[in-house]
Amino acid sequence: MSKMPNHYDPVEGRAVELDDLPWVPFPEAFSDGGIRWKLLNVAPELGSWAAIFDCPAGSSFASHHHIGPGEYFLTKGRMEVRGGENDGGETVTAPAYGYEPCQAYHGRTFFPVASEFYMTFLGPLNMVDGENGQTLALVTWQAAQAVWEASLEQASTNA
Amino acid sequence: MSKMPNHYDPVEGRAVELDDLPWVPFPEAFSDGGIRWKLLNVAPELGSWAAIFDCPAGSSFASHHHIGPGEYFLTKGRMEVRGGENDGGETVTAPAYGYEPCQAYHGRTFFPVASEFYMTFLGPLNMVDGENGQTLALVTWQAAQAVWEASLEQASTNA
Amino acid sequence: MSKMPNHYDPVEGRAVELDDLPWVPFPEAFSDGGIRWKLLNVAPELGSWAAIFDCPAGSSFASHHHIGPGEYFLTKGRMEVRGGENDGGETVTAPAYGYEPCQAYHGRTFFPVASEFYMTFLGPLNMVDGENGQTLALVTWQAAQAVWEASLEQASTNA
Amino acid sequence: MSKMPNHYDPVEGRAVELDDLPWVPFPEAFSDGGIRWKLLNVAPELGSWAAIFDCPAGSSFASHHHIGPGEYFLTKGRMEVRGGENDGGETVTAPAYGYEPCQAYHGRTFFPVASEFYMTFLGPLNMVDGENGQTLALVTWQAAQAVWEASLEQASTNA
Repeated sequence: MSKMPNHYDPVEGRAVELDDLPWVPFPEAFSDGGIRWKLLNVAPELGSWAAIFDCPAGSSFASHHHIGPGEYFLTKGRMEVRGGENDGGETVTAPAYGYEPCQAYHGRTFFPVASEFYMTFLGPLNMVDGENGQTLALVTWQAAQAVWEASLEQASTNA
Repeated sequence: MSKMPNHYDPVEGRAVELDDLPWVPFPEAFSDGGIRWKLLNVAPELGSWAAIFDCPAGSSFASHHHIGPGEYFLTKGRMEVRGGENDGGETVTAPAYGYEPCQAYHGRTFFPVASEFYMTFLGPLNMVDGENGQTLALVTWQAAQAVWEASLEQASTNA
Repeated sequence: MSKMPNHYDPVEGRAVELDDLPWVPFPEAFSDGGIRWKLLNVAPELGSWAAIFDCPAGSSFASHHHIGPGEYFLTKGRMEVRGGENDGGETVTAPAYGYEPCQAYHGRTFFPVASEFYMTFLGPLNMVDGENGQTLALVTWQAAQAVWEASLEQASTNA
Repeated sequence: MSKMPNHYDPVEGRAVELDDLPWVPFPEAFSDGGIRWKLLNVAPELGSWAAIFDCPAGSSFASHHHIGPGEYFLTKGRMEVRGGENDGGETVTAPAYGYEPCQAYHGRTFFPVASEFYMTFLGPLNMVDGENGQTLALVTWQAAQAVWEASLEQASTNA
């Protein structure tokens, strides 16, 4: 145990050009239809992370809760959130912004056309077996980083 | 979908004197030895919550991960965190402060003597079946509020 | 004073299509060269806000500190951050992502070509008279909202 | 500029027993009546900090805004917040908890009797010359740390 508060320095800035990063498959356990992603940053003290997703026409994410707030910027295509506008949710066409609050449940996020979105997550995604179902996986900043790094490793091995 | 950002006002301040709140049992599924608590606040936008816990000698909390950072202020007694100082963790004697980071795993938080601590949580506690085990329950701000309100209801019915 | 914690419900989701919002001038007190912006969201409990900026070739932002972390997604053009790569900082070409930490000082953010970026801010921008200079203005979520709403009002009056 | 996201490890836990830290004077520029404090932690990524304050009868803090949310736990005495209950604000008697939201203005926080409180701050205090007045100082986590370390240095020199 420290006898007194440690000294802390400011955190370093970070920047990355997206073309320097490969697209890798997003885990099929949590998505359908060939979604690929790039992890852009993790912030371990706050538990936030940032990523961009490439979503082919007809692809979707499996059921999840946002444990903390998330903000997306849809750069291309169209996204059906919380069922889409025909089912009580929202359908947005790019360019669009959205704020998904703490506890938001996304039964199925669907992309009717080829789409791309950037998103920041404060806290994990709770992948669940239905709205009141069990936790299948908790995608924390650390789990996201582990999945990303394993994909890079595999991509490098295959090359 | 809103056509433009809504207008938002600042959030209201809140204050509560602790003697106005009853002590209620903390769920036995997640604690042992008669721990009682008072929920002091929830903040739904950020997903944070604050509570105070009354921990008899020999009581403990079950295994959990802190999903976001948590800060405690031990006002009375002694707390063994992450195994205590004899097992790689820390043992603190009141008055003491601690910062539990995002992802911290607490196998068993034990109170060798009657203790009391106030704690703020950013994000949920992930109650787990061992360090790499399954999620038993995710104690979000909303779950904490639901448990607290049910306890008040029951206390009122019993009175 | 409340006698006990109030009950709180989850915050509502929000979504906006950018073409539904007008571009309005960003205050000249804090920028040069005709920068325009759209405010996309404010989150009053956490103090965060999100916006998109349209930056003509040769435009720039005045000196500021980021009081909390900020994350940008450069969708178009090129941005010189913290002096640019020729002066100890970074120069990024779209598409690019960056994380500006708590306390980061940006002496002058410059756009050598027509650029556009989306950014989320946790906490205010502290517009300053040089790195160790006085605060000229604190652009909190609330100040950003007030400036945005005044611009909409004026745009509507002029129409 | 990094070519890809860096790998980040979880942040370390911290704990401190308060009797291991000295009480030092809180800057007189921002308080009156002999307030002393101990800095307990800073978190540079989020910009939060935690401290405990010892407030003699009749002491007070100067006018400030909370830039982000703050939560206090009053362990001893009585605190008049936002003017106290006779002037539109709140007066709380220990043990008490309070949540001061983002943007809250505290014209004068007054302690009619000897008091002590622990507080966590997300973001800085903006010390101001009246409610709509100029910023006199921005007490960020980093400024708080600098003031604390200078006080320790001086205490050590004097000893």
